[in-house]
Amino acid sequence: MQDRIPAAELERFAAGLLSAAGVPADAAAIWAGVLVWADLREVDSHGVGRLGQYLQWLAAGIINPRPALRFEALGPSLLRLAADRAAGPVAMTAAVEALRGMVAAQGIGAVVVSQMTHSGPLGHYTAAAAEAGIACIAINAGIPLIPYHGTRAPALGTNPLSIAVPASDQPLVFDMAASAIALGKLVNARRLGAALPPGSAMDGEGRVTTDAAAAQMVLPLGGAKGSGLALMIECLASLLGGNPLIASALELPPGQRRHSQNALLIGLDVTRFLPLAEFTAQIARLGELLRLLPLAEGSDSIQMPGERGFAAMARNRIGGVPINRKIYHELQALADKVGVPLPPLHASPQGPEKAEPLQGNPQ
Amino acid sequence: MQDRIPAAELERFAAGLLSAAGVPADAAAIWAGVLVWADLREVDSHGVGRLGQYLQWLAAGIINPRPALRFEALGPSLLRLAADRAAGPVAMTAAVEALRGMVAAQGIGAVVVSQMTHSGPLGHYTAAAAEAGIACIAINAGIPLIPYHGTRAPALGTNPLSIAVPASDQPLVFDMAASAIALGKLVNARRLGAALPPGSAMDGEGRVTTDAAAAQMVLPLGGAKGSGLALMIECLASLLGGNPLIASALELPPGQRRHSQNALLIGLDVTRFLPLAEFTAQIARLGELLRLLPLAEGSDSIQMPGERGFAAMARNRIGGVPINRKIYHELQALADKVGVPLPPLHASPQGPEKAEPLQGNPQ
Repeated sequence: MQDRIPAAELERFAAGLLSAAGVPADAAAIWAGVLVWADLREVDSHGVGRLGQYLQWLAAGIINPRPALRFEALGPSLLRLAADRAAGPVAMTAAVEALRGMVAAQGIGAVVVSQMTHSGPLGHYTAAAAEAGIACIAINAGIPLIPYHGTRAPALGTNPLSIAVPASDQPLVFDMAASAIALGKLVNARRLGAALPPGSAMDGEGRVTTDAAAAQMVLPLGGAKGSGLALMIECLASLLGGNPLIASALELPPGQRRHSQNALLIGLDVTRFLPLAEFTAQIARLGELLRLLPLAEGSDSIQMPGERGFAAMARNRIGGVPINRKIYHELQALADKVGVPLPPLHASPQGPEKAEPLQGNPQ
Repeated sequence: MQDRIPAAELERFAAGLLSAAGVPADAAAIWAGVLVWADLREVDSHGVGRLGQYLQWLAAGIINPRPALRFEALGPSLLRLAADRAAGPVAMTAAVEALRGMVAAQGIGAVVVSQMTHSGPLGHYTAAAAEAGIACIAINAGIPLIPYHGTRAPALGTNPLSIAVPASDQPLVFDMAASAIALGKLVNARRLGAALPPGSAMDGEGRVTTDAAAAQMVLPLGGAKGSGLALMIECLASLLGGNPLIASALELPPGQRRHSQNALLIGLDVTRFLPLAEFTAQIARLGELLRLLPLAEGSDSIQMPGERGFAAMARNRIGGVPINRKIYHELQALADKVGVPLPPLHASPQGPEKAEPLQGNPQ
């Protein structure tokens, strides 16, 4: 059995909390929609469980509830968006909208988003672009959380890369962090006393460990690979946008580093290359052939990128968004503080198994 | 002690072999230059050691020695290059040249290269763009070599991703394959009877193994991550270009699959965002701060992406290109066949330690 809240109620509640913290209604609706999108896909790390932190950041002036988004054209299909510490979902949604316009006019476009705050699920934005016929690549830079290869201090964000392309039903949506495992996985393993996957974490002395109690830091994916990718994402998203996150953070002691994020979105109009129906037919052909391959040991299905999340979404739009008790209690405390009523939990009649959460960007 | 050949002599020799196989002199010079670039950087897997295979492919009609490269404008900063089975270095060099023109005019550009053959070292092309002030992202799709996550049959190429940005001296050049280890590493471990890194290979039954003798296939980097990335690279580089590699290959038995590759290059003009000197100053600042971080256990230096290769290049331009005996004997056999004289090996007077080869694209 799984406790659930209908998506529309959860979204209204989240928007209500954000509005009570001074966020205008339209921005609160966008922001809440992105969070519930993640919860519908069962990516808890990027859903309403983040609201407590967001409200703290709003109160502390880290997130600006009423940002002045400033677009600057750098070419016919090149934009910089100075986001004025906007909530990530607000800045990124505006960026995707602008990207769509450029891609429709020119066949290609890029937007650098600088000085926003936590982006939320990066795949949300590439998926939105893909639903509009755009092949979209997005990268997202954050402040130090994982070591640079060869070092034992937090030096880079978990900087995700997301790629989405249109398909006949749901787009293919790939979203990976540059870390070996999500930060939340380390926290969970510590609580449960479970072992970590080999090569995924480091202790305080810089020794690779599978002992969650000793682990201090999550490692980059594949050592030099994830670490190099995260560095290049910083170079593109942060340095082109004029908001260097890593250098600014490394010049300060950890306690004084301020949360900030940057992103780069690049879009290509599929229809400039071939008719959309031909492209999506090729995607379907590829998926069908991959599904015919023999299974590896321990595997019981072959999934396309994003497929698990879309299946969860379809299920949870009907059955309600699964909410764990810990998050529910946190939301209750937030609700009580401002007098916004929290929708009651209801147990799902059939309680389908909750899928493994997708890998997300935990910064 | 290390046997060496001066770079200019090696390049002349490689170009001579290719010319003897029917490649026009200008194309042979470009191709040879790219191979020796890899050897100078000590990425043996992408250097002159490939010449035997290339000559076979030329003889078999897989590589077209005199391709008609056809550019098609899909927008003011969007091109498709139908490469007519050109050698990868010839097609990719033409693509970078075209990219430079679009980026100079529009601030952004993209080129899809379809129907070429083995690209060679992908970082060569992003580095060339970065040396012209372009922040460049390139992806490269090939035929099935690694399994799709959850399966135990070759399903995807090792599809590399390369990103390069300008810097004050040498560009930062990141180049990673979507596989956990290079294919060459598996071959070497088999020969030496060495254990493979955990999680990097699979036996014929689809069981993950560290036993090189049992290993049949290299795994994707990070399981679903590398596999998803390789799939998205196929969707972008191959499906947008109209040359589906994976679906076409999976519809045929392994023995009938024909070598082919596609790529996508995207460039951004750094100077549209900020003066180049400010950007490169930020890159230098970031590198300096990362170098100040405490070392992890077992690590003795902190390197920026591509740095090791540029250091090797500087060393080997003076001391000569290190060539191992096995490759030298293969080259001798090729040279004898067509009567192109192979330059003699000379032992380096000081014989500096050869660095660990960079991760490359082994397909």
